[in-house]
Amino acid sequence: MFKNILIIGFGMIGSSIARSVIKKYKNVNIFAFDKSNNLKIRINKSKLNNVKVLKSLQEINNLNIDLIIICVPMLQYQSIFKKLSNINLDKTIVTDVGSTKVNIEKLYNQKKYKFNFIPSHPIAGIEKAGLENGFDGLFTNRYNIICPLKKSSKTNINKIVRFWKSLNMKIEIMSAKEHDKVLSLTSHLPHLISYSLVLTAMKKESSLISKLIKFSAGGFRDFTRLASSDPTIWTDVFLNNSEAVLEMLQRFNEDLSALQKLIRKKDSNELYNFFKNSKEIRNKIEQIFINKNLKW
Amino acid sequence: MFKNILIIGFGMIGSSIARSVIKKYKNVNIFAFDKSNNLKIRINKSKLNNVKVLKSLQEINNLNIDLIIICVPMLQYQSIFKKLSNINLDKTIVTDVGSTKVNIEKLYNQKKYKFNFIPSHPIAGIEKAGLENGFDGLFTNRYNIICPLKKSSKTNINKIVRFWKSLNMKIEIMSAKEHDKVLSLTSHLPHLISYSLVLTAMKKESSLISKLIKFSAGGFRDFTRLASSDPTIWTDVFLNNSEAVLEMLQRFNEDLSALQKLIRKKDSNELYNFFKNSKEIRNKIEQIFINKNLKW
Repeated sequence: MFKNILIIGFGMIGSSIARSVIKKYKNVNIFAFDKSNNLKIRINKSKLNNVKVLKSLQEINNLNIDLIIICVPMLQYQSIFKKLSNINLDKTIVTDVGSTKVNIEKLYNQKKYKFNFIPSHPIAGIEKAGLENGFDGLFTNRYNIICPLKKSSKTNINKIVRFWKSLNMKIEIMSAKEHDKVLSLTSHLPHLISYSLVLTAMKKESSLISKLIKFSAGGFRDFTRLASSDPTIWTDVFLNNSEAVLEMLQRFNEDLSALQKLIRKKDSNELYNFFKNSKEIRNKIEQIFINKNLKW
Repeated sequence: MFKNILIIGFGMIGSSIARSVIKKYKNVNIFAFDKSNNLKIRINKSKLNNVKVLKSLQEINNLNIDLIIICVPMLQYQSIFKKLSNINLDKTIVTDVGSTKVNIEKLYNQKKYKFNFIPSHPIAGIEKAGLENGFDGLFTNRYNIICPLKKSSKTNINKIVRFWKSLNMKIEIMSAKEHDKVLSLTSHLPHLISYSLVLTAMKKESSLISKLIKFSAGGFRDFTRLASSDPTIWTDVFLNNSEAVLEMLQRFNEDLSALQKLIRKKDSNELYNFFKNSKEIRNKIEQIFINKNLKW
């Protein structure tokens, strides 16, 4: 397994990886590289004293880094890739945790980078950012989607699979394109709706707002939890997966319009069928989760 | 306080009221009236043996019922109101738990019913129906919105307020119209979107569906929890609050379209501002809840 791991971008996800690795492996060295000014102080305050802070990515070669995990917002990938391309990384595997994959693959291929890159996407997160909010159980029993490049070697893919598995993740391998399609529905569209709904609510007359808040337990509260997510990350996602998201949004709009029409026509039979159908599908999904002993 | 309480419609909500009353009061008799054939057997199986089952609403007068709580789907209100209007209810207060209020008030006023009716709406529920799923903590620290009629006496309003308060509920008094407006946003619209999104998902190519399910932890799962709710109740809600819901849906559509446009234009600054704004508002709401020691 890896001996010297560098985490580029030491926020909530990056620090959670560090904590998980530290808990699992006694003899692995962890290094962090991040733009944050007072990174060392924050790392020590968070009781991660063993994590060593790099001043520059040039230090990589002197430290025999064998795994690099890129955990920065995707807008910064270009600059990170460029820096990495100037370093000898023959003995290093690079992976990432970015939420969209087609854009990243394209970025890598366009400039014909040479470093050993195996993109991955751990489906795990909380709504709070910052290394102080990381924790070591974040990845337990969660899926990680690996999207190997055409030139990725089997050996390297296997190493990355084993690494994430050792942090208690379930692995799924698929193409970048399929990844982006699936996630546009399971994750991106729900986030988009959630952000949008918060603003719809807040445009109401101010006399109503305090009441909206009071009664938000009726659905609004849980429904808008996703809107507490990091705006930088989600700007990234929607810019980078715009095609799949816009297609999904259009389908969703069509279904919502159909429902709107049924309400306007007061068609109780069809409304009932719609809801019953929806509930049955939802319950089936729940049953599949329970049968597989997955978190529900 | 009340001595003999009749619950009409003994499902999840009705049985939860029974359990809460039994826990709080030693000397209150609880009666149940419901269309279910094997009601008594189910009640006994659920260890609610003390609840007596009425064969007909005509028994009300012999039993000195002083509180009636209507817990049936709203489509059945008309028939229940009619039956109640043939019984002497001078010493009885009638309340309900219906999810919309303008329609109920209208129904009562149109036929000029005389019984003492104080509509109420406990904002509490779970996605599972049936008396077997009721429990006594359902109402604890939840809001109950009381929507008195013009002719409701202060004494009766106070009795109903005290009753729900004694089951650990927080009380808010507002007009039926205001209730329906507030709930259209905090509850009805989220349910509508949730039902709709499940169907959007399931219309995808079947090869994708198993993957959609696998990765639903990324937002879809929590987002569609509301779609497990009882289709009868929600058909009721959307038929009865169609005006407010359609208005809210239109506003939501406008906001979502604006967002769609920003994605299409790849306007990263505006997208970021939109998400940041939304997150800040969401966090403010969360803080208000935490400051008030409300469930969050």
